[in-house]
Amino acid sequence: MTVEGFWYKEYREGRRFIIKMIPGENLVECITKFAYKENVQYAVIMSAVGSVKNARFRGIKSGARLPLTSARINTHELEGPLELLSLTGNIVPGEDVLLDCHLHITVGKSSGEVIGGHLFDAQVFATCEILLTELVVAGIERHHSKSGGVPTIYFSEE
Amino acid sequence: MTVEGFWYKEYREGRRFIIKMIPGENLVECITKFAYKENVQYAVIMSAVGSVKNARFRGIKSGARLPLTSARINTHELEGPLELLSLTGNIVPGEDVLLDCHLHITVGKSSGEVIGGHLFDAQVFATCEILLTELVVAGIERHHSKSGGVPTIYFSEE
Amino acid sequence: MTVEGFWYKEYREGRRFIIKMIPGENLVECITKFAYKENVQYAVIMSAVGSVKNARFRGIKSGARLPLTSARINTHELEGPLELLSLTGNIVPGEDVLLDCHLHITVGKSSGEVIGGHLFDAQVFATCEILLTELVVAGIERHHSKSGGVPTIYFSEE
Repeated sequence: MTVEGFWYKEYREGRRFIIKMIPGENLVECITKFAYKENVQYAVIMSAVGSVKNARFRGIKSGARLPLTSARINTHELEGPLELLSLTGNIVPGEDVLLDCHLHITVGKSSGEVIGGHLFDAQVFATCEILLTELVVAGIERHHSKSGGVPTIYFSEE
Repeated sequence: MTVEGFWYKEYREGRRFIIKMIPGENLVECITKFAYKENVQYAVIMSAVGSVKNARFRGIKSGARLPLTSARINTHELEGPLELLSLTGNIVPGEDVLLDCHLHITVGKSSGEVIGGHLFDAQVFATCEILLTELVVAGIERHHSKSGGVPTIYFSEE
Repeated sequence: MTVEGFWYKEYREGRRFIIKMIPGENLVECITKFAYKENVQYAVIMSAVGSVKNARFRGIKSGARLPLTSARINTHELEGPLELLSLTGNIVPGEDVLLDCHLHITVGKSSGEVIGGHLFDAQVFATCEILLTELVVAGIERHHSKSGGVPTIYFSEE
């Protein structure tokens, strides 16, 4: 439904899964592989706790304008290991892919300092415990936004 | 129910919504507007991912005591843009308002450094995708706590 | 079920609780006490918002290898007070205890800087509002992992 300033849709919850990833595995790759295996089209990360290494993520350059381009972002890679403090985001069908993950991460350094951003991928260090819930919904897809420069969810009503 | 050190109540989940906010919109204002429109009295933010700019939030001054007063908090405003890494909190009926949002935010800077605190408001940058769940519960309200100095939820049994 | 790189299991959601903790109480102690009182064996933290002081948590030393030992972690203690920005993790039956909490925290300092890690415990400052969901599942336990050095969930199928 469209309203002033936002779009929204009601959804129901489908199956719920607890997933434990093995050290060395790639987080985003694992989540994607899991979703294909269980035929989960829409999902949300409900909880994530564990530790990672070789985390690759991006931040947006200070003062950047839309659309986001590669010149307007900073890519970070941290060897770690790091405590995985939060992982948020969703899986939605994409334009060119059946499943498109949009995930943001925060991780804690040795010093206790927290860093994070838009997650490219990270390897599981000691363990990683994720709760993922399937969303029962239709008519939502992630497309490249020309004005925003980034993949963005669109409702079929838009 | 009261017990030693904490109060609690069982709740059920009502409707669940996926909300997409348009660039330039105010996050807290949008969530409040949405809740009024759909007549959601109690809710929790289940997931949030996106990017923001002009984020205004507060931290508590080191060594501060209760009650919290304006002299005991620090207000921050960051132009950004910033990756939205987490948004947590709830909506509960307030003393003087039908709906009172209590939201905390973490955002990632260009450098990967994460900052955050008690959210006043922030503007959507490229996009903002929020999952919000209605709580079916009664007998909970947010009142100003004299001893704490901040709006705090109270159970009718207290 | 076992697959390449990860283990997983479907679960259902049981009772859902909103918990308000009193200033001065210990967060992890309260959650544990609550779970025993309500006979919750498996649970996940769905949302947490509030403020804490005397937060004790750990980070993993940069460059550390598995298994994690006490020499490979850094313990931090911050008096604060601090805004509680996120609390993620789960409760699962342990080897020697009926209930074992695995929780990670992020908190915001006066400066807006966010720190965090694997939570030992923290005291509630002004208030703490937690949503906790019971998981209906069986055949999962947290055991000490010899290769990882840390308590890790195991599925009975492993």
